[in-house]
Amino acid sequence: MERQHISTAFDIELNDLKQSILVMGGKVELMIANSVKSLVDRDTALAERTIALDHEVNTAEVAIDERCMELLALRQPAARDLRFITMALKIVTDLERMGDQCANIAKRAREINSEPPLKPYIDIPRMAHRAEMMVKEALDAFVRGDADLAVKVCKDDSSVDDLNTQIQRELLTFMIENPMTISLGMKLNYISKSLERIADHATNIAEMVIFMVKGKDIRHTIA
Amino acid sequence: MERQHISTAFDIELNDLKQSILVMGGKVELMIANSVKSLVDRDTALAERTIALDHEVNTAEVAIDERCMELLALRQPAARDLRFITMALKIVTDLERMGDQCANIAKRAREINSEPPLKPYIDIPRMAHRAEMMVKEALDAFVRGDADLAVKVCKDDSSVDDLNTQIQRELLTFMIENPMTISLGMKLNYISKSLERIADHATNIAEMVIFMVKGKDIRHTIA
Repeated sequence: MERQHISTAFDIELNDLKQSILVMGGKVELMIANSVKSLVDRDTALAERTIALDHEVNTAEVAIDERCMELLALRQPAARDLRFITMALKIVTDLERMGDQCANIAKRAREINSEPPLKPYIDIPRMAHRAEMMVKEALDAFVRGDADLAVKVCKDDSSVDDLNTQIQRELLTFMIENPMTISLGMKLNYISKSLERIADHATNIAEMVIFMVKGKDIRHTIA
Repeated sequence: MERQHISTAFDIELNDLKQSILVMGGKVELMIANSVKSLVDRDTALAERTIALDHEVNTAEVAIDERCMELLALRQPAARDLRFITMALKIVTDLERMGDQCANIAKRAREINSEPPLKPYIDIPRMAHRAEMMVKEALDAFVRGDADLAVKVCKDDSSVDDLNTQIQRELLTFMIENPMTISLGMKLNYISKSLERIADHATNIAEMVIFMVKGKDIRHTIA
């Protein structure tokens, strides 16, 4: 009975941990969408709000780290639960760094909004949308232990990489044709690379989920 | 007596864990030095060897992760030891991603070596040397629990950031003056940014060390 009681309390604690990670993830997803929206809509106030949100993401990382260590110390979990908590420790670091990337995108958007636009942005919002979906699905895969969804996220990464390569080539063409656009082109290039890094972080999370579920490490094996 | 015995065996295990991390770190330091050396010396064979070394770094991450989970499950550590092992889990992820950056630098060096040189490289090797020192000192700070050394690493990061900004400005000037150099300039820009990211990873490790030693979280407070 006592064992059962402890197990149930622990289940609730693990569920709370999952929820905290999803809430943190939701903030990061909002930051991805809004950092690029602040560029597309030339909305500097939105860029400022996105930069401010990064503090909440940072605070969430510290709180979840502490919670994981408390659970490891107090509950001394084994097997699956142990793997889940050690993964949570790594996942929140990825989420926090995604937040940093979004803040960087918003800072660049703030600079770009004070210059005349180069051309309508089509591929960058598309890239942002895919990266945001990858983060959402990677976290869903984590809390549900859904390896199939995690595999999908890993596969989706190549489409974001392709968009990044395409954007970089296009910007290069603009810059060669008109050196006046080099400074702006490099900022847009930076934004594109930041989105690609966000997608990489989502892929890292998805690879860890597959490892957690299947007990098999596919990290460093997917090209 | 039994407790004492367990404690001693555990100390040896923790020490082995530290050694594994230092060995992994040594490989990353070599990758930093050699990726940039392959650029400066236009040594494509060295670039290839550096890319190959990344596999060893990836394998080391997986092995250390597994070891940490074994120690958490079998030894059920508390307080300081628990914090040390959870930090080790995060640190090896940073080291593995530094390895990825070095492989990317070596790949760019391989491309650049087939084109005529832009100008002698001075700041990029300087940046690489500082980044390598930061990694070494961050890991020394970790295994020794030396918060002062970790603080130094955090401070050193700004000098790498400054070098990166300076290199980017200089490359921009070259590219504006001569659009023929844009493609090469962007590759060098990428290398500079990769080195800056490596220094960021070292800073992340150093911040965690300060947290581990002082039980105080300075992450996200150092500008």
